[in-house]
Amino acid sequence: MGGKRAWNIEVPKNAVEVKNPIRALVEKIGAPNPEKKVITLAQGDPTVFGYLPAPEAAVEAVVAATTSGRQNGYGHSCGSAECRSAVAEAHSPPGHRVTADDVFLTAGCSQGLEHAIGLLGTKGKNLLLPSPGFPLYETICEYYGIEPRFYQLRAEKDWSVDFDALRSLVDDHTVGILICNPSNPTGSNFSKQELESYISFAEENCLPIIADEVYEGMVFPGEKFYSMAELSERVPIISVGAISKRFLVPGWRLGWVILHDRNDILQAADFSHGMKGQHMIRLGPCSLIQAAVPEMLKKVDDSWLAGVMSKLEASAEVCIRRTEGIPGLFIAARPKGAMYVMIGVDFAHFPGVSDASEFAQKLFKGQSVMVLPGELFRAEGMFRLCFAGPPEVMEEAFDRIAEHCEEIGEQRSPSDRICTPQHQTMPNKRMKRVNSFVA
Amino acid sequence: MGGKRAWNIEVPKNAVEVKNPIRALVEKIGAPNPEKKVITLAQGDPTVFGYLPAPEAAVEAVVAATTSGRQNGYGHSCGSAECRSAVAEAHSPPGHRVTADDVFLTAGCSQGLEHAIGLLGTKGKNLLLPSPGFPLYETICEYYGIEPRFYQLRAEKDWSVDFDALRSLVDDHTVGILICNPSNPTGSNFSKQELESYISFAEENCLPIIADEVYEGMVFPGEKFYSMAELSERVPIISVGAISKRFLVPGWRLGWVILHDRNDILQAADFSHGMKGQHMIRLGPCSLIQAAVPEMLKKVDDSWLAGVMSKLEASAEVCIRRTEGIPGLFIAARPKGAMYVMIGVDFAHFPGVSDASEFAQKLFKGQSVMVLPGELFRAEGMFRLCFAGPPEVMEEAFDRIAEHCEEIGEQRSPSDRICTPQHQTMPNKRMKRVNSFVA
Repeated sequence: MGGKRAWNIEVPKNAVEVKNPIRALVEKIGAPNPEKKVITLAQGDPTVFGYLPAPEAAVEAVVAATTSGRQNGYGHSCGSAECRSAVAEAHSPPGHRVTADDVFLTAGCSQGLEHAIGLLGTKGKNLLLPSPGFPLYETICEYYGIEPRFYQLRAEKDWSVDFDALRSLVDDHTVGILICNPSNPTGSNFSKQELESYISFAEENCLPIIADEVYEGMVFPGEKFYSMAELSERVPIISVGAISKRFLVPGWRLGWVILHDRNDILQAADFSHGMKGQHMIRLGPCSLIQAAVPEMLKKVDDSWLAGVMSKLEASAEVCIRRTEGIPGLFIAARPKGAMYVMIGVDFAHFPGVSDASEFAQKLFKGQSVMVLPGELFRAEGMFRLCFAGPPEVMEEAFDRIAEHCEEIGEQRSPSDRICTPQHQTMPNKRMKRVNSFVA
Repeated sequence: MGGKRAWNIEVPKNAVEVKNPIRALVEKIGAPNPEKKVITLAQGDPTVFGYLPAPEAAVEAVVAATTSGRQNGYGHSCGSAECRSAVAEAHSPPGHRVTADDVFLTAGCSQGLEHAIGLLGTKGKNLLLPSPGFPLYETICEYYGIEPRFYQLRAEKDWSVDFDALRSLVDDHTVGILICNPSNPTGSNFSKQELESYISFAEENCLPIIADEVYEGMVFPGEKFYSMAELSERVPIISVGAISKRFLVPGWRLGWVILHDRNDILQAADFSHGMKGQHMIRLGPCSLIQAAVPEMLKKVDDSWLAGVMSKLEASAEVCIRRTEGIPGLFIAARPKGAMYVMIGVDFAHFPGVSDASEFAQKLFKGQSVMVLPGELFRAEGMFRLCFAGPPEVMEEAFDRIAEHCEEIGEQRSPSDRICTPQHQTMPNKRMKRVNSFVA
């Protein structure tokens, strides 16, 4: 056998070609205005402003685990029995008990999504994904050679889906549907009826549901969150979640996949075997955080979360009120939870700007306010704004957004400018216009 | 397009088929003796006995990061700049400076190995792996469809390799060689000369080296550890490490891959691009641990590690002395570091036992002492013992191992039994015999 004679290293294409559209945008966006302090409403990180601190009980639990000296070792590769049991108990819907064996702890929700998508699909298969939706779904599909098929959520109909259009996407190679609720990037929270319609669709087509519920329970006062698992009797639910958003600690990197498999459909396909296989290579999340989770789930109750959601709603209200006061901008649909609102841009008001990317770039350059253009989420003509900052920061951000819109709108004729404020009192008309902006 | 009509979920084979031989053994090993407390010398977890506590500075640094409230958010997907810089600084050999850009933080060393192996190889390629060696290498190769080719380390020659045999393994599809030093499972620490021979071999054959140095610096007093990166001028070194073993915190799950690429060979192959791609999906390790690492690297110095290694050596000495006193067992080669010793079994002394797996199973059943049979590491006729327990625990374990050997040796004739003690004074003869046990 002859030895190699050249350094012909070939790095796998699927790794080199991984796209992170958010990173690409952030790198492309250029420099901020050096005279204005940067306000970033871009990343979905609730910790950025210090407005939403982690619960004290969570901090205390991690400190206790760290100082105990007893949580430094290896645990079970799928996660410790204590942590998995606690997650199972907190996620057992009435009438259907899941146990530690149904729970797989992951390095954040991202790894949970990677494992769930990577196990359900293979090359040549396709997965139904929401549009607008979180770009990581598509990134993972591409890495595994799975074709993403996008189902359209309609801003003008409160981000609901057209089920006929959804049905038309299904073929023999469709392996499942991913539903994100409450939604990143739309801030929507589906009604019980809408979720049941998704489940009926999935049952008719024998499609397991990947439920991205990382914003589980994060809805504004008066709204009610339903988990897919509590509503589904016959469709297997692969539920993906994390402590990241709910406990305001995304950096801690602890998530989970829960197999809600009432009729042993996943079991018949050896699904949990595949989950175990992935975990044998990748092992579980940080042992100190695993040790803290049972305490966190016990001590941090719904009233704490309700307090967080009230604060988020106060900031969301600023976004809604201020957007309504800016000609050329409109709220695509009122957010009901999570940390996001999609704001539509009427380009007729801004003749010097061709798309939301350019709008966002110029906003950053001129006003040092960073938002994410909708193109990243397959929602053209909009931008996503994270309202995890305190109301006063949101006000400051909107002062600057208003100034930005004034500036980029300057090329219009005076008559146009007088005309625009009418739109503020015509929400229905404005809502209809959204549709043309959605990809 | 017709909808699906059955739940034909197909989980990818490579995930279902992931083998974890250590887990399989542990499940197969059965129940311990209920009358004796379990002593596990099986897993490579230095925390099990409480004999080797994590450094105080590490605990303090994690507590400070946790209570600060400023380390809960998302960081860079490849790891924070501060942590990567600190790891780079601590791993820059004289005359060759690596920077944060060359460092990728991973969820423990396992993920570092997965990323390094998964980027170097693809289906149809092969990778040279040590035998005996850590079974995860083979597991990862199989997951990615890479053929593992094993190069034999010879116990009777202090675990050195036969380079002619090594050369014969190389063909046009060989993508690299993995070298683990100090070694799991052998406890060896290669000399400077031997490491340089590996590097010459790699250069001749244009093979990048994956250096598993998770036991970096963990050598007994009097021994010297050399990193691959400090010795290699022309061969790119993909160095994989972690805080897991060196700082005695494997559960914290923080490791790294460092690209030592003095001649831009990996760069030309877009290797770091592929690393970034993997990280965009998987994100970095826990932010609290990332925040603690710079302090840990600064405050936990070589003298602290020397103290740990003296304690490990004291426990290793017990294993060596006691093994030499048990007819039918022998030290395969004196360990020089890490936490392991391979102990050979002369089956002529134990006619009722056919292999090391059976030896280990019976040891657990009768004496509640758990060790790992060499088969797991491709080293038949031996077992691996982790000496991370205090000397008194090792003594107790060997009291029971001796009792076990007495029991399973009982079927021999009295004359045989008188004969065996001679071997204790004939280390050379005994060493030669090892060879026949190595797969």
